[in-house]
Amino acid sequence: MIKEMITRRSTRSYNGKPVDKELVMQLLEAARLAPSGKNTQPWNFIVVTDPATKEKIAVADHNQMWMVDAPVHIVCVADIKRRNPDIGQVVVDENAAYPELKAVIRDTAVAIQHILLMAEHLGLASCWTGWYAQDDMRPILGIPNDQYVVGVVTIGHTDDPPKAQTRRDLEDMVRYEKW
Amino acid sequence: MIKEMITRRSTRSYNGKPVDKELVMQLLEAARLAPSGKNTQPWNFIVVTDPATKEKIAVADHNQMWMVDAPVHIVCVADIKRRNPDIGQVVVDENAAYPELKAVIRDTAVAIQHILLMAEHLGLASCWTGWYAQDDMRPILGIPNDQYVVGVVTIGHTDDPPKAQTRRDLEDMVRYEKW
Repeated sequence: MIKEMITRRSTRSYNGKPVDKELVMQLLEAARLAPSGKNTQPWNFIVVTDPATKEKIAVADHNQMWMVDAPVHIVCVADIKRRNPDIGQVVVDENAAYPELKAVIRDTAVAIQHILLMAEHLGLASCWTGWYAQDDMRPILGIPNDQYVVGVVTIGHTDDPPKAQTRRDLEDMVRYEKW
Repeated sequence: MIKEMITRRSTRSYNGKPVDKELVMQLLEAARLAPSGKNTQPWNFIVVTDPATKEKIAVADHNQMWMVDAPVHIVCVADIKRRNPDIGQVVVDENAAYPELKAVIRDTAVAIQHILLMAEHLGLASCWTGWYAQDDMRPILGIPNDQYVVGVVTIGHTDDPPKAQTRRDLEDMVRYEKW
């Protein structure tokens, strides 16, 4: 097994220790290497360290104020135009029906998981959060309405790693040859 | 860096060597460990080895007949009802607008990426394919219309690993503090 898949946790408790910028760049490099449909790489990342901005993000993200204690937020954004450059002026949000939006959310999710696994590899604590509305999150960072925020990942150090979450049994999720 | 992120490739050329069932179970165990929103684990997997079924899948998947040479297909399915048990009878496809569908596609994509990284870890070749319509793929396997096939992953061995794809520069995808 890849050990980071076993040991990674969603950490919502951070101590004050800062995160070296070089480590953040290694997280982003991991995201950069993710595969994507037609190799479109439809993702962009905003690295946020400003406390006032982190507070606004935490408020938009369902008042999860623990997020402010994480020294770094990585805001992970899917760009529908990388999948369909001719789509024109569109507004994408939770209720949008565009097929291309599903594709770029899918691809950006893969890149985000590379960040989480790499964080674990580097001894950093992280949490993928997504409890916000696009219309609340985007204005905080000036993100255009044709961009979809797939997640805000908190990065930091913890003194209090959470226990593993339970998982469904393999027998419950695997079928053979047909549904 | 996690080396599997660097060395993983999308392999579309398989030799005839079979895949040990125990290795397939290790791939599925990696998927099982993936994180998901609210820990809903909204995924199911169908392991397909039957040549006739693989051929039907390949035809539905844009006539990618190379897929038939892979000894194993893992059909990866997102279940919207695990996110919203009260959603009732719905049909989900590429044009569906349900917010919950976006969430379960996102989560299942993460589980699929665990499969791809774990395949690389085990020395297996793999490719995530997704060039099909839900309405063409689902009937082949008897998948209900409220399930979304996020990908069909081919698994096998190769004598001809492809070269790495190009990637956008990090500078092109990373911003600081705001969009």
